[in-house]
Amino acid sequence: MKIQPRTLSGFMELLPKQQVLMEKIMQTLRETYSLYGFTPLDTPIIEASEILLAKGGGETEKQIYRFTKGDSDLSLRFDLTVPLAKYVALHCNELSFPFRRYQIGKVYRGERPQRGRFRELYQADIDVIGDGKLDITNEAEIPAIIYQTFSKLGLKKFQIRVNNRKVLNGFYAMLGLQEQSGDIMRTVDKLEKIGPEKVKRLLIELGVSEEKAGEILEFIGIRGTNEEVLEALNGYRGRNDIFDLGLDELGTVVKYLGAFGVPEENFVVDLTIARGLDYYTGTVYETMMLDHPEIGSICSGGRYDNLAEYYTDKLLPGVGISIGLTRLFYILNEQDMLNEEQNTAPADVLLLPMTEDLSPAVKLATRFRNAGVRVQLYGEQKKFKAKMNYADKIGVPYVVFLGEDEIRDGVVACKDMKSGEQTKLGFEETLERVREGLAKRNEGSVILELGPSAVSS
Amino acid sequence: MKIQPRTLSGFMELLPKQQVLMEKIMQTLRETYSLYGFTPLDTPIIEASEILLAKGGGETEKQIYRFTKGDSDLSLRFDLTVPLAKYVALHCNELSFPFRRYQIGKVYRGERPQRGRFRELYQADIDVIGDGKLDITNEAEIPAIIYQTFSKLGLKKFQIRVNNRKVLNGFYAMLGLQEQSGDIMRTVDKLEKIGPEKVKRLLIELGVSEEKAGEILEFIGIRGTNEEVLEALNGYRGRNDIFDLGLDELGTVVKYLGAFGVPEENFVVDLTIARGLDYYTGTVYETMMLDHPEIGSICSGGRYDNLAEYYTDKLLPGVGISIGLTRLFYILNEQDMLNEEQNTAPADVLLLPMTEDLSPAVKLATRFRNAGVRVQLYGEQKKFKAKMNYADKIGVPYVVFLGEDEIRDGVVACKDMKSGEQTKLGFEETLERVREGLAKRNEGSVILELGPSAVSS
Repeated sequence: MKIQPRTLSGFMELLPKQQVLMEKIMQTLRETYSLYGFTPLDTPIIEASEILLAKGGGETEKQIYRFTKGDSDLSLRFDLTVPLAKYVALHCNELSFPFRRYQIGKVYRGERPQRGRFRELYQADIDVIGDGKLDITNEAEIPAIIYQTFSKLGLKKFQIRVNNRKVLNGFYAMLGLQEQSGDIMRTVDKLEKIGPEKVKRLLIELGVSEEKAGEILEFIGIRGTNEEVLEALNGYRGRNDIFDLGLDELGTVVKYLGAFGVPEENFVVDLTIARGLDYYTGTVYETMMLDHPEIGSICSGGRYDNLAEYYTDKLLPGVGISIGLTRLFYILNEQDMLNEEQNTAPADVLLLPMTEDLSPAVKLATRFRNAGVRVQLYGEQKKFKAKMNYADKIGVPYVVFLGEDEIRDGVVACKDMKSGEQTKLGFEETLERVREGLAKRNEGSVILELGPSAVSS
Repeated sequence: MKIQPRTLSGFMELLPKQQVLMEKIMQTLRETYSLYGFTPLDTPIIEASEILLAKGGGETEKQIYRFTKGDSDLSLRFDLTVPLAKYVALHCNELSFPFRRYQIGKVYRGERPQRGRFRELYQADIDVIGDGKLDITNEAEIPAIIYQTFSKLGLKKFQIRVNNRKVLNGFYAMLGLQEQSGDIMRTVDKLEKIGPEKVKRLLIELGVSEEKAGEILEFIGIRGTNEEVLEALNGYRGRNDIFDLGLDELGTVVKYLGAFGVPEENFVVDLTIARGLDYYTGTVYETMMLDHPEIGSICSGGRYDNLAEYYTDKLLPGVGISIGLTRLFYILNEQDMLNEEQNTAPADVLLLPMTEDLSPAVKLATRFRNAGVRVQLYGEQKKFKAKMNYADKIGVPYVVFLGEDEIRDGVVACKDMKSGEQTKLGFEETLERVREGLAKRNEGSVILELGPSAVSS
């Protein structure tokens, strides 16, 4: 009796070609995050339930993978933020602040399986944690990191949307609505989906007067260049300290954009953004793919005042962002935005020995590898045609043949599988040719975005 | 009420400096495995219990993390081999064979926590899977991969020990003991621990005659250079076909060692090695740290005939090895074998702006980053001494200061934190100096092994 092999629904399992592209994305994230001085972190996937559920309540508790093992009440992490809070609280005497870490890891959410929703998913997070205080420059740097990350991946048509919770909280305080500001922001967040009329009706249902609802819609309707938006906001200055502080912060974030190399077209101040989570207290970020607004934000986060309040009295303010990597990969794949031209073969060279004694082929493989070329030595007893079929199927860029003639003449026969061109050259010349070809193949980025002209043609 | 932050016992959680070294080890493994034409694979950590427990029984079932979620009976993987078997059986029509994959991932075992034992542990595996057949060259290549992997990590005093199960099975068949060969091999495996006398007594307890027990001990006592061992084994030739086939295979593995660049001193044919698992059928491998035999094998594996027999009728022979990465890291750390001189700081340069307007500093940071230098921009409002303390604590190689004077003169003040030397140079000259220094710091390997002279002195 055989057991039918299967992978659980809601769990992504990629075929080799796609997995290589996923690895390239992860490697790009690691490199980019590192350039900004973030250190890698790894924490357990399993934690004590009391740790993960310290905050408790809501969707989280329902979706969590929770079980007992022996006497222990255990849970699988559902994000990378709570484990970070635990880590920082636990190790705070051994860490230096500001503590900047990145983490790319799997998290678990028992959501109803549906297209594009995953129960096991990678998140790729960065956070900067301060000890008591954290300067606004950290918030100003985040858009640069988002911009660099997606640009290096090859994405162009995206927009980082930024707002500041102090601006919002201060504004609602001006209207005497501070008590309801949470509810109001959740309502306003729906603007893009349901339109201003419905938002206004919902606000009135919340008990906001018609006049104030109108003021709110006017406020969040402020549009224009970043300078124009800041200018409009300046008109509200002097009526609330929190608002003024938030506006200063927003001004700082915008001010350094140019110096950080973020182009205007990839960044916008957007007063409708609040982020669902309650704990953001300053700058908040969303990142939209302009051709795919239906997808929602692909990179979000913000500034918070107290990372680890459930574990320690120490005040640990921070700022962080998270990329939902598994979902992003799923979307890129579905939208045909992954660059299939990238070299995703398991090897750069497939080496086919044509002699009984494999020693010369083994030596040649070793030489290539010592030069950094990835070589698969193919020793199977198959017909020549089957070998070449295999080379085609794995998509290897080069096939190298080594027969008696080549060994005698001290040359290497090398076939470029794309052009079909075959050469017989010495090792060094072959190596150079292979390296040039590989460099060319690896020039492109992982994400391939069709320009507007290509889309319309 | 605060909840006491804690990490579950048996779960490794590293501080930043050590985590960076762990990442470097993983990156070395990824690169080395890739050089031999292995493609990266990632599979879910959670699988249906019926899949993971298809083989069933034994320690595995007791140690497994198993739980229900909704109607599903789920388990956390306890190794990377069973998920590979499922993957290959499930996707066999979409894969090309031989299928060569590497996987570095976490697995879970509910062992009793004790020093150096982990419940969540990384394994780093490679396997080559054939479709019906798999050539012996794949088995011959494995020692080269083991050798390259540990050499690149910086380990020198290790020995790859190789045997062949067909040689053992054939030998026991010669003695008419094929039925008991499993029990015998498990007993013989204890030779190093309990000595030949006790092994002999245990064999006799198994029902082996004293004469045959003597022959067994003589056989596994064969010692010498690889040539000498093969020569001694040749004396048994012609009495059993399986033995002869195994001896041919062993001969092939030894023959290509030189061509693969494996030095004699790192490799030995050792007839006592059988490997605990029942399913190996050809070459088997162990890797010992010569200064730490008490640790046991740090990289083991072998050839098997049927990877996925529980899921498919398809015959899928393979060969693979596994490194218990978490345990290895623990040991290296405990033995003080991790190279603390490696650059483990979160950044290469800590940039301290000395002006109120940070724009010039932000621009400088961007320039460094565009040149591939990892920069942390330090914007906190602290005293100069506190800033330098921070630089010391994170171990950053260079601190760059940018004040009014430097901006006016178009120079950069850069302090080498190790030598204390401070320069004021243009950007390009500073960049060159930083790059040279970093290259020097990254010259060494992650593992630092003291030579015999250093140990004895």
